[in-house]
Amino acid sequence: MDRTSATTSSGNREAIEPSSPVAYFGDDEPLHLDAGIDLSPLQIAYNTYGELNADRSNAILICHALTMDHFPASRSPVTGKPGWWLPLIGPGKPVDTDRYFVICSNVIGGCMGSTGPASIDPATGEPYGLTLPVITIRDMVRAQKMLVERLGIDTLFAVIGGSMGGMQVLQWTVSYPDKVFAALPIATGARHSAQNIAFHEIGRQAVIADPDWESGRYFAHGKRPVKGLAVARMTAHVTYLSEMALHRKFGRNLQDRDVLGFGFDADFQIESYLRHQGMTFVDRFDANSYLYLTRAMDYFDIAGDFDGSLAKAFQGSQTRFCLISFSSDWLFPTEENRAVVHALNAAAASVSFVEIDTDRGHDAFLLDEPEFFAAIDGFVSSAARARGLSR
Amino acid sequence: MDRTSATTSSGNREAIEPSSPVAYFGDDEPLHLDAGIDLSPLQIAYNTYGELNADRSNAILICHALTMDHFPASRSPVTGKPGWWLPLIGPGKPVDTDRYFVICSNVIGGCMGSTGPASIDPATGEPYGLTLPVITIRDMVRAQKMLVERLGIDTLFAVIGGSMGGMQVLQWTVSYPDKVFAALPIATGARHSAQNIAFHEIGRQAVIADPDWESGRYFAHGKRPVKGLAVARMTAHVTYLSEMALHRKFGRNLQDRDVLGFGFDADFQIESYLRHQGMTFVDRFDANSYLYLTRAMDYFDIAGDFDGSLAKAFQGSQTRFCLISFSSDWLFPTEENRAVVHALNAAAASVSFVEIDTDRGHDAFLLDEPEFFAAIDGFVSSAARARGLSR
Repeated sequence: MDRTSATTSSGNREAIEPSSPVAYFGDDEPLHLDAGIDLSPLQIAYNTYGELNADRSNAILICHALTMDHFPASRSPVTGKPGWWLPLIGPGKPVDTDRYFVICSNVIGGCMGSTGPASIDPATGEPYGLTLPVITIRDMVRAQKMLVERLGIDTLFAVIGGSMGGMQVLQWTVSYPDKVFAALPIATGARHSAQNIAFHEIGRQAVIADPDWESGRYFAHGKRPVKGLAVARMTAHVTYLSEMALHRKFGRNLQDRDVLGFGFDADFQIESYLRHQGMTFVDRFDANSYLYLTRAMDYFDIAGDFDGSLAKAFQGSQTRFCLISFSSDWLFPTEENRAVVHALNAAAASVSFVEIDTDRGHDAFLLDEPEFFAAIDGFVSSAARARGLSR
Repeated sequence: MDRTSATTSSGNREAIEPSSPVAYFGDDEPLHLDAGIDLSPLQIAYNTYGELNADRSNAILICHALTMDHFPASRSPVTGKPGWWLPLIGPGKPVDTDRYFVICSNVIGGCMGSTGPASIDPATGEPYGLTLPVITIRDMVRAQKMLVERLGIDTLFAVIGGSMGGMQVLQWTVSYPDKVFAALPIATGARHSAQNIAFHEIGRQAVIADPDWESGRYFAHGKRPVKGLAVARMTAHVTYLSEMALHRKFGRNLQDRDVLGFGFDADFQIESYLRHQGMTFVDRFDANSYLYLTRAMDYFDIAGDFDGSLAKAFQGSQTRFCLISFSSDWLFPTEENRAVVHALNAAAASVSFVEIDTDRGHDAFLLDEPEFFAAIDGFVSSAARARGLSR
């Protein structure tokens, strides 16, 4: 596949990583946002792995989580880290790139190459900042649909994602029910809970409280709200881990010395770990993007779009679903995942459900969990047979 | 009892609320801190309710939680709010002020009248700020012991407190085992967990990230780190409530309007509720005090002082214990409370344990929970009979 073929000459091109292709959409192809505004120009940074087959029937879309990127199976030039789903995606792996054509794009509103608040607004020549309309999960999926069509694909064999990525998976099956053969929403829910909104709001207020945020116009002032964003990241990070995992990894272990310091430096390992999480995050993530993506998750409520009935959202769905939850995930507890399963059952959809027993919390979907990979492997293989995809 | 008799002429007197007495301790009576420093002068703001009996055997010490004060049963002149344990303490109530002499003092390190980081350091004439040594729960209890002795009381009939107050109760029984007849540690634990330290560290970093904190010297700059402190409070507040309580109270209910605002104003009621919690807190609490008190809780680890053996800490205790936990408390889950019960059993101490079934989370200990009050009533009445306190 010629990766450069996915670009057009229109649109406002920005410098992005040389290793990932970008799809440009000009003023003639705006993105219709839920906010009621047409966004153009638009650019979508993405990566692909494997080859599209002659039928164009073997495409799998990977949807990334809040702070991830479009490098699930290759090293990110931004972070220098190996792909965040490398154990899952590759030759001979559960998402086998010898069999499937795997696509992953940076979400709209993000900061890794797709249009987001750090992108230049062609109307002003300045970064959008808060003038970019609020983006929803449905908007992200709408943009992914534009990309998938641009790549010449009508129907996706599968859509897979965890957390915010799982929200996108669910939205795909609702927005484009006949364009998704199999769906794997992982560690997610059909809506964001009050507690989850609360933690996101704390993060946003931490960013907004930082005077270097400058009402969202920090670029114009040559600043970045790194302290506020670090606190936001620390808050979120605690919710990604289970109490048990924190206890096992850190407990009350002390840092550097074996006695308490009687001061406000990091005494406990958990403190220095969190500070490190906060400080490394600000190097790779745009603060306004953090506001936009958390907002998108908070707004997510599929049933809300269907008179409060989740089952109605999935009525008549021909997609094969496999939901996977993690027993110690308190951000998207098993019951939130199971609520989707119940709705799918009520809608007479085809659905499997697996709860992985682990004490690693929400982040388990990004960790090496053999049972988790086996569940994906089994479901994807079975769906491939049903789809008639030859080995 | 003549309240003014509890003061001495030594010490550096500060303006405090006219309605609460203050005990002053001069350079001849320093407080020996765990940090290895003698702190003087010292002042302890407190309130009493009821009358001390002739035997001086009916005194109950109430220990307050992180952000509370020494006004459990009377209106606080700072907040203007009625006593925070008014349903529990008063004539004819479970802690019956017709029968008992009830004492409550503001903790050392606090900001409601007792010596804390906002107090004037007599050596400099400026507020201590971060030059005040780190305070521990044991230091708080040591100061309370000085106050109790000053009030002419040798042995307390009971010590009662929830959360950080419960830590003080446990510390009393370990530091002064023969001075406490009955102990009621509520919604607490024998140590702070990694997750609890994590949430406190987020709060501290939010304060420290605020440039108006000025390295702790905000008073000298005529500033206050209100934004950082508000974020800290928002974070803590979420941990005080259960997910169920948040869902019941707020769910995804919208604020002011019935449609999403597509912006970053408070759309959801939970957002405006949290913002309100943050903004009202900064009016009544000192930011450095928040650092000191959270640090004290993080340092708390009774077993750590006894070669890791909690049972050893309670060995030979003659105190009657009643521990109370709340089923939906995820800050101090029932298992943390029960770990103390097990240690007390191993130490052959007298112990009762009650888990109150409620979905209101950690904050339940400050709410109107009839079963909770009934448990305290029953235990205190029984202990009073054993103590030979006539009705």
